[in-house]
Amino acid sequence: MSERVAEYLAGQRDAILDRLCTLIRFPSVSTDPAFAEGMRGAREFLLGRLRSIGLTEVRLLEAPGGQPAIFGAWTGAGPDRPTIMIYGHYDVQPADPLPLWHSPPFEPTIRDGRLYGRGASDVKGSTTVAVEAVAGFLAVEGGCPVNVKLFLEGEEEVGSPSLPALVKAHRELLAADAMLSADGGGAAGKQPALNIGCRGICALQFSLRTAAKDAHSGKVGGAMRNALHEIARLVASLHDEQGRVTVEGFHDGIPPLSNALRMEAASLPFDEAAWYAEFGATPFGDPAYSVRENTTMRPTVEVNGMWGGYTGDGGKTVTPAEAHAKLTMRLVPGQEPEAAQTAVKAHLERHAPPGVALEFHGRPGGTRAFTLAADHPLRAAAAAVLAREKGGRPAVTRLGGTVPITTLFQETLGIDSLMFGLASPDEDAHAPNEFFRLSSLEEGLRLWPMILTELGTMRAADFRTRG
Amino acid sequence: MSERVAEYLAGQRDAILDRLCTLIRFPSVSTDPAFAEGMRGAREFLLGRLRSIGLTEVRLLEAPGGQPAIFGAWTGAGPDRPTIMIYGHYDVQPADPLPLWHSPPFEPTIRDGRLYGRGASDVKGSTTVAVEAVAGFLAVEGGCPVNVKLFLEGEEEVGSPSLPALVKAHRELLAADAMLSADGGGAAGKQPALNIGCRGICALQFSLRTAAKDAHSGKVGGAMRNALHEIARLVASLHDEQGRVTVEGFHDGIPPLSNALRMEAASLPFDEAAWYAEFGATPFGDPAYSVRENTTMRPTVEVNGMWGGYTGDGGKTVTPAEAHAKLTMRLVPGQEPEAAQTAVKAHLERHAPPGVALEFHGRPGGTRAFTLAADHPLRAAAAAVLAREKGGRPAVTRLGGTVPITTLFQETLGIDSLMFGLASPDEDAHAPNEFFRLSSLEEGLRLWPMILTELGTMRAADFRTRG
Repeated sequence: MSERVAEYLAGQRDAILDRLCTLIRFPSVSTDPAFAEGMRGAREFLLGRLRSIGLTEVRLLEAPGGQPAIFGAWTGAGPDRPTIMIYGHYDVQPADPLPLWHSPPFEPTIRDGRLYGRGASDVKGSTTVAVEAVAGFLAVEGGCPVNVKLFLEGEEEVGSPSLPALVKAHRELLAADAMLSADGGGAAGKQPALNIGCRGICALQFSLRTAAKDAHSGKVGGAMRNALHEIARLVASLHDEQGRVTVEGFHDGIPPLSNALRMEAASLPFDEAAWYAEFGATPFGDPAYSVRENTTMRPTVEVNGMWGGYTGDGGKTVTPAEAHAKLTMRLVPGQEPEAAQTAVKAHLERHAPPGVALEFHGRPGGTRAFTLAADHPLRAAAAAVLAREKGGRPAVTRLGGTVPITTLFQETLGIDSLMFGLASPDEDAHAPNEFFRLSSLEEGLRLWPMILTELGTMRAADFRTRG
Repeated sequence: MSERVAEYLAGQRDAILDRLCTLIRFPSVSTDPAFAEGMRGAREFLLGRLRSIGLTEVRLLEAPGGQPAIFGAWTGAGPDRPTIMIYGHYDVQPADPLPLWHSPPFEPTIRDGRLYGRGASDVKGSTTVAVEAVAGFLAVEGGCPVNVKLFLEGEEEVGSPSLPALVKAHRELLAADAMLSADGGGAAGKQPALNIGCRGICALQFSLRTAAKDAHSGKVGGAMRNALHEIARLVASLHDEQGRVTVEGFHDGIPPLSNALRMEAASLPFDEAAWYAEFGATPFGDPAYSVRENTTMRPTVEVNGMWGGYTGDGGKTVTPAEAHAKLTMRLVPGQEPEAAQTAVKAHLERHAPPGVALEFHGRPGGTRAFTLAADHPLRAAAAAVLAREKGGRPAVTRLGGTVPITTLFQETLGIDSLMFGLASPDEDAHAPNEFFRLSSLEEGLRLWPMILTELGTMRAADFRTRG
């Protein structure tokens, strides 16, 4: 059944690529209100597509004060078949620094088999594959092997602040047996991997004030605290020279890394030297762990942006009175987002000398790390599909990034997720010149029909009896 | 003779204030090429005014690649009278952060006896006073008590990079016996002070790179250097916790602070608690020195601006590969600008770990600290004027800031300077809501005729035999 669908989708490849390009042209940057029009455009385009493929229900789920999510359902497989939630997101990261792009970020451009554009890899490419796989079944077979609920959110790139309320409000509508995510995962390429976990995240922004106003550095220099010197001291206090987080209490709750996990981390060949060379960087990080362990099984405190004083052309002899920093923390199993945020806040407050006032800005939300249990049917289905398509047994990996919905759906709806996206780690997601491989698009249009077919061989009860 | 002129100027007060407002309306921000039109406007307005008051010569002195200076001369006092160079500048600091201004920075606004506007205090107000004092003599007396050379530069706020070449090229034209500066000094107000020195300055900008490109903090976080963490460590290494500069070799050449200088620093009453309260700040700085000593007799290394990563609305989960900082160093007698800059560069390079690349951006120029000798006729003239106008003996102070021209004129033309400006230290120069007191304008229009008259009682030979 999946072969016919895959054949159909291969024939539709150019039309599908066209639709993906249209989607990328909408600058759906969720973090910046200036891009509201781009968000609306991406949303309406996807709604239109879903309405045209024969789903039983298509609607927007509104999040008060947040970005609406797109919902679509097809429930014709019957109650014995599992209901699979398919997850993607239509929002993207900001495109700056713009001057570093070789082609405009919102004008998709194909070069050397790669589709360049903001969001191509993260995650409009894989989202398109998932939607088109469902469309393919409905077009060719008149139905899907499983019941399907599509859920495409618009806040993934800002940490999904209003998603918990939205999911709770639509608990019935979103009920499912498992979730298959188009975000995360590494199903495409020569070294397919089963992505069974991701780090959590929480965020913190703070402003630091040393005086009521900026002053002339000639007049006050030598007897007045400089906000930039003070924020430098505070940020420097967060890590030791090898990058180990030195925040007291931050690691609370994290069990020691087990031998099983260290073996899992080593199961997929990984060339550390090549990895650093790709980024033009040199080895760094806690020497007690491998790169893969440091980037997927250990937590971080990361300053994503910092600024203060005069940053324009030329110079300005000012002693700045305020400085600002944006931080995110990546979390591993055992850590609570709120506790991690509190630990960093407390560290900053403890290290701020008298005369330095800190103000923390609310960044609501926060997501625990997620792990898919070893005996979950999703793992078996994906392993079978990858083995059939690529041969061999797929390696098991974790994502260093965060897919907040995996944790949220586990906690709120009681369903587990498998990341089955087609993006490759070298596609410069979140950076200039983001791209998506056309070969991954084509591969996705084979793999997604296969995994939906595989899941259709299982019974709904296989998922429900687990726990 | 000065009384008649002062009376005349008092009668012209509203017209003079009008001209000052016109001058402030030109946004003459020298550091930013976007304000070239404002620079040109201020220049042409001043040229027009000088051309209308009866000087013997008025012209622009062009600086290749820099901002032209305005020159005007009146040499009718004869060779026995001293020739006094009068210095001012027509450029101003940038006005940002704009949102903090209560009225637009380039729309002069009077509130409570204060004229608000960028440049009102630094130093269009005092420059206007100096020009109008000369105009007053020419209008009322048909001549000045001394020969006058007006020199109004356009690069003071960027450290006068092309001024040395310009002064050297016009050595003959600029020949004078002494210089009276409208910039610096504290001639106005209840506690007049003789400002007999200023700190020097040099600048340094650097960029720091940890990788060839920004990366997704989820993918690389924990195993990749973060440029913001690294710049924080470097900046934090420049000072100890009490703000003492920890840069090796930076203090080379500075003699220990003598008892005479410490007594000088203590000669003007100074309420440290009130000073900090005015800035909304708490005491800080090397505890071995008083605030006045730390801000006028000790050197600084100051970060004026620092930035990197994502600084827009919301968040972006990026591990930044580059970060930037702008620094200026305030220098005291004994320090060489180039040596101080070299010491800071060497410190940064020594403290940058492997994998962190630094790039320094040229900020040419640099100015030694300046001191006016105790037996200089300028000191006697100013002391006599202030004693007559205010009673008592004026305190002797130094400026924590820098008036590059004082050092330059001493080194290039062999003439010494006295700062005789009317700005007060609380007028928020270089900060939002800069203002100039109308009472200082009025006082200046009395004091400048007096000091020109006093200098006119001296012979040119009194200046020439000194040195």
